[in-house]
Formats: sequence, C-alpha cells, structure tokens
Amino acid sequence: MTDRIRDFLRVRRDLGQDEGPVMVLDLDVVRDNYTAFARSLPDTRVFYAVKANPAPEVLRLLAEMGSCFDTASVAEMEMVLAAGATADRISFGNTIKKERCIGRALKLGIRLFAVDCQAEVEKIARAAVATDVPTGEIRVFCRILCDGAGADWPLSRKFGCVPEMAADVLEHAHRQGLEAYGISFHVGSQQGNTEAWDGALGSAAAIFRECAERGIGLSMVNLGGGFPTKYLKAVPGVESYGEAIFRGLTKHFGNQIPETIIEPGRGMVGNAGLIEAEVVLVSKKSADADEVRWVYLDIGKFGGLAETMDEAIRYPIRTARDGDATEPCVIAGPTCDSVDVLYERQLYPLPVSLSIGDKVLIEGAGAYTTTYAAVAFNGFPPLQQIVI
Amino acid sequence: MTDRIRDFLRVRRDLGQDEGPVMVLDLDVVRDNYTAFARSLPDTRVFYAVKANPAPEVLRLLAEMGSCFDTASVAEMEMVLAAGATADRISFGNTIKKERCIGRALKLGIRLFAVDCQAEVEKIARAAVATDVPTGEIRVFCRILCDGAGADWPLSRKFGCVPEMAADVLEHAHRQGLEAYGISFHVGSQQGNTEAWDGALGSAAAIFRECAERGIGLSMVNLGGGFPTKYLKAVPGVESYGEAIFRGLTKHFGNQIPETIIEPGRGMVGNAGLIEAEVVLVSKKSADADEVRWVYLDIGKFGGLAETMDEAIRYPIRTARDGDATEPCVIAGPTCDSVDVLYERQLYPLPVSLSIGDKVLIEGAGAYTTTYAAVAFNGFPPLQQIVI
Repeated sequence: MTDRIRDFLRVRRDLGQDEGPVMVLDLDVVRDNYTAFARSLPDTRVFYAVKANPAPEVLRLLAEMGSCFDTASVAEMEMVLAAGATADRISFGNTIKKERCIGRALKLGIRLFAVDCQAEVEKIARAAVATDVPTGEIRVFCRILCDGAGADWPLSRKFGCVPEMAADVLEHAHRQGLEAYGISFHVGSQQGNTEAWDGALGSAAAIFRECAERGIGLSMVNLGGGFPTKYLKAVPGVESYGEAIFRGLTKHFGNQIPETIIEPGRGMVGNAGLIEAEVVLVSKKSADADEVRWVYLDIGKFGGLAETMDEAIRYPIRTARDGDATEPCVIAGPTCDSVDVLYERQLYPLPVSLSIGDKVLIEGAGAYTTTYAAVAFNGFPPLQQIVI
Repeated sequence: MTDRIRDFLRVRRDLGQDEGPVMVLDLDVVRDNYTAFARSLPDTRVFYAVKANPAPEVLRLLAEMGSCFDTASVAEMEMVLAAGATADRISFGNTIKKERCIGRALKLGIRLFAVDCQAEVEKIARAAVATDVPTGEIRVFCRILCDGAGADWPLSRKFGCVPEMAADVLEHAHRQGLEAYGISFHVGSQQGNTEAWDGALGSAAAIFRECAERGIGLSMVNLGGGFPTKYLKAVPGVESYGEAIFRGLTKHFGNQIPETIIEPGRGMVGNAGLIEAEVVLVSKKSADADEVRWVYLDIGKFGGLAETMDEAIRYPIRTARDGDATEPCVIAGPTCDSVDVLYERQLYPLPVSLSIGDKVLIEGAGAYTTTYAAVAFNGFPPLQQIVI
C-alpha cells in the first residue's frame, strides 16, 4: 500500500465512485522494481513477462526504462510494439505456438524463440521459409524441465524437455540453419529459495559442453522468472537472488559465463497493485457458536483471484478494523459457483468486527489478476484496473 | 454433434474462417431439452440457470417457450428482461447479494429471492423500504446444505445453511413482513444419481412441518439444478429424474405436494454446444520410447475449459482420426501457465496419428465455457460463441 494508492482510493470514495472491486497499480513501484533487477543482475537482460500484467502504462514505462519483453502470443507482441519497444527486444517465449503465429511474429521482426522439442524447431524453420526470413537470423533457445522445489506456485511438466534431450533439439535447430542460442528453464513461480537456480545452471552447463562437442557453440542462459513478490511471508530481496545466481554461474561456467536473461513478471508488478473489494456478506452455516464464519467478498476466483486455486497464493488482506480481535474465517467470492472459495482448507484470520459493506484491501495483487478475470461469469464484469 | 453444427463447421472451414477455437451452439437442442424438462416434470416451473450460458439467442428462445430464469446478478436480470421475459419469471438465486443490487432488482420488478442467513433477509427488508416495495410482495426461499454425493462437480458448503437453521431464517423473514415462501437445495452439478433428491426432500418436508408449527405456511420447494449432460459416461434421461423426484415428493409430502421449481443449466444447454479447437503441438518430454505424449490444444483452462479444474469434467473429444490406434496422452492448453493442463492425472486416449494442425471437436461444451473464459490471458481472446 503506497501513499499514492491510499490517496487515490480516498478520492475515489469521496466522489462516490467506489462501486465494484478495483485494482490500483502504482507505476512508481514498477519503476523501483525494474531498477532493483537491473542493479542486482547488472550483466543480465531483463525480459518482462508481459502476461503478468499487460497494462499499456506498464509496458510503456518498461520500454522507456530499457526493458526487453517475454511474450506468449502475437497479441502481446503487438501491445509491446505499440508501447514503443522495438522487435529486437521481444522474445516469443511460449513453447506452444501455431506455425502461422510464428510467421506473424517473424513478419513483426521477432527473432528470438523458445522451443522444447524438434517439432517446434521445424515449425520455425518452415515459417522462416514462408516469410522469407533468413534462418540464420533466428535464435532459438531450448527450455529444460526443472523440479520447482521451493516455489509456492510450482510448475508442472508442461514446458520443457529433460536436459538429456536438449542437445538433440538444439542440434536439430542448428541443422535447419537456425542459430542454436541457448538454454532456458524456470525454477517455479514465487520461488522462495535463492539457491533454486543452482541445479538448473548445472544442467545448462552440461548441455553447453555437450553441444560444444557437437560443434555447436551456445551463448545464452535464460534464467526464467520465479522472483517472488511479498504476500504474507517475507521473501528475500532481489539482491540475494542476484548474488546466488552469480555464484551459480561462476560455479558451473567458470570464467566462461554466458549471456543471461531473466523474465520477471510477478517480481516486477506484484507488489505494485492493490485490490479494493467489499464485504458482501458475513454469515454462519449453523447456529452453533463454534461454527466458522464465512466472509463473502465481491471478488473471487473468477473475478481476478484465480491464483487462490488450491490456496496457492495467500494474499495479505487489510481492513479498517485491523487491531480488533480476529477469528479464522472461510473467504469466498460472489458468484453462484461453489468452487469460488478463496481460503477454506487453511482458514484466514479476519477481525470479528468485520461487517457487511466494509472495504478490504488485497495486497500484492499487481500480477496475474486482471487478465485472469472471467469475461462475464454470472454477469459480473471483469476486474477493473486503474494505473496511477 | 448435430447435422446443423457439422454443416456450419464445414462451411466455416471452406471459407477459410476457422482460425481460433469456437463454440457452436445449436438452438434446436436447447428447444428439445426444454421440452423434455417440461414434459418430465409437468407440475414444476423451469427456471433456467442463466449463468450456464447467457447467450441472447438462448434467453430469447427460452423466454418464448415459457421458461422462467434463475439469475445471479443484476446484469443477468437485465439480459433476461431484454430477451423478452417479464420480471415475475425471474428469481435472484444468488444467496450473496449487495443490498444495492437487491434494490436494483426490486426496481426491475423482481420479487423472488434466495437467502441462507438472517443477515441476507435483513438486507432484503431494508432494500424493500428503500425502494418503496411492500414487503408482503416479496417471496423469500431459504437454501439448505446438501451433501452432493454422486455429483461430478460436487458443491462446497458455500451456499445454504444446515436444515436445522432454515426455520429460524424463514421465521425471521416472516417477522420482517416478507413472504416465507419455501426451501431450496442443490444436489450437486452433473448429478448422476436420480435418487439424490430424496434426502434433501426429507429435510425440506421437516422444515415445512417446523414452520407450520410456528404458524408459517411454506408453499414451494426449489429442487435446484444438477441435471447432467452427457460427457463420456452415459447419464440417465430427464424422465428418470422426473419420476424419482415425484416419488420423493410423494414420499415426504404425502398428498400435500408443494409447488416446485427446477433450475437446470448444464442439463439445458450442455449438449447443445460443441467446441472446435486445433492441435498446436504434439511432443514428448524425453526421447524414451515409453514417454507419454503431450497434446497441446489452442483452448485450455483459461480459454473456456475451466471445468477441467481437478479434471472434474471429462469432455468427449472427437477427431478426424478416430478409429486409428490410440494411446493415453496428457492434454494441455496454449497459455504460458503451467496449471493450464486439462488431463494429466487420468491420461486421455487419443489417436496416435493425431498431428499438429488437426482439428478436434469437444462435445458437451454448451454450458459453463464461454463465460468462464479469461478476458485476455496471455493475449488470447476469450472463446468465441456462434449460435445457430
């Protein structure tokens, strides 16, 4: 909660315009976060993960500050270009791409692509021919699997191949005339362990050696995202991550440290955004005095808080009654969907005095909220975002 | 898959307009479903659960056929009114309502409200005063908890109070001058057991007796939804549900059978819709011959298939290669989100010959798909719907 957000919400309320949940994002925080990444990892290029929050104001700010951009789709590339970044600062980081989308990306000037199998390499090579782009201009990096231990939102096996397969994928790219550029991995979102990069860096170095033996010189390691934002638990600062990663690079690559990329999303915008929501109902399911209270908000899983799925992300929630006695509650959303419950397995302590109509402030809500919102489930509009 | 949908998709493809996933909904199927409900439960009023699919064409058809409507929000009421139904055919079925939304509903002429606690009753009474609506015109029914055994998408404890509390809630409504109208419950979505209504009907009858002893005559039982649509498993026909429910009513209410309401959503539109999607990638995570294939589609959890959450709903998937040898696969969506995996714990058999660029047809996709789609996650547009 920054002073600027506090002031904005006060004015909004005074004007009587505080109907419905809203996410307010403070660009000053994004600026500070970018600066911290740039300082803590001075030799690393920052590719902001656009999917975390593609607000035009965020993209413009980061484009001005010199950031590069990790995009998941052609639509995201177009947004980044519209925000003023050039195509050489954009990667197509999705390992799952339609061939015609690769073609569109090439026409937009994008030359950096993620892959995790030979079929994806072949799509890129064919799209290059179809769009008359010399294959030698196109850089391809292969994503490898990583176990994600220590992450609050650990990744599935959806992206990446086993490290043992990567050299074959990259050799395949090389044989197609593409530039076999490097390796990427992701240590899991909201990664609390600064040492989590070590194992994957070891795998990357082994692939560099294997490719070198095949006559292919790799040059880049994409360290992915995973940098946390502060929810309820304290998290290490960006500097600690920078130091640990540098130690890992030195340990595994010696004095031949490769180019590096990071792809922060949550770490760049998470703590810049705050959701103001309203208590719609407080009730109990029985007259039993020990019965747990249910607190229903006007935002839930389908309105922007999708990351409460499996109670993975536990947002800090502030109220004007903080300081009063608390009791553990179930917290649920406003829709007629029974899975629209935010916290139930692990109850959430809220003030006993919390009442219908009270506002609550949900912190750390700048990433993975607005774009996750359902288009109109139950007739409720998607989460509104205001960038200040 | 109806002939009309097949023809439509063929023309769309011939015109080269088959880019991106689409849900095609055949109104003839909705018409048949409505007729089946009306015939199988002849003394029951049908309140279509608008949240399942609020397409204007669906609402218009059902309004013409005489259906009533269960709505979750003021926006849904406005859509139903725009489709030609009158306010006396609309219920505000959400037990979680802002007081100002109740006021708006009353101004629109809505007089039927769900509650599950005294605080919600008080909101309605206050909103009636604020909008000058006589409280005696307003009917309130109390939702009770139900265990949901036998349902594929069982409900949490989010909606409803224990049956023992319902008489107090209804007496509270009665004392506020509202009409204590009846009881509602929901046996769980995609309920495969036709006998599932029996236990809740017993609870409802007990609450009728308890209220009668307090001098309050209830008149209505809202049997909720839960009527299944056919996915992979065969489901009983609507007639079987009608017969079982009638037996339950007779058993628990004797010759004083109350008015009844049903709220089908999935059962009304589920089998009317089909999604055509595309295979974006088929790959393996390692070179091991036994490694499972991953099939990535251009639609996933955030593009409309939210009900694959926890692999709850298992959609039938047809391909042009059906008949070829199959192998179990993981199926995943197109976004850069690792949880965007549809079926992994229980692998899904698909033809070994299935290839990148092939179309797949996802059946039973008429309910709870379009409105669940994220607004623009990863830059992907929400699921397009075409009603024919």
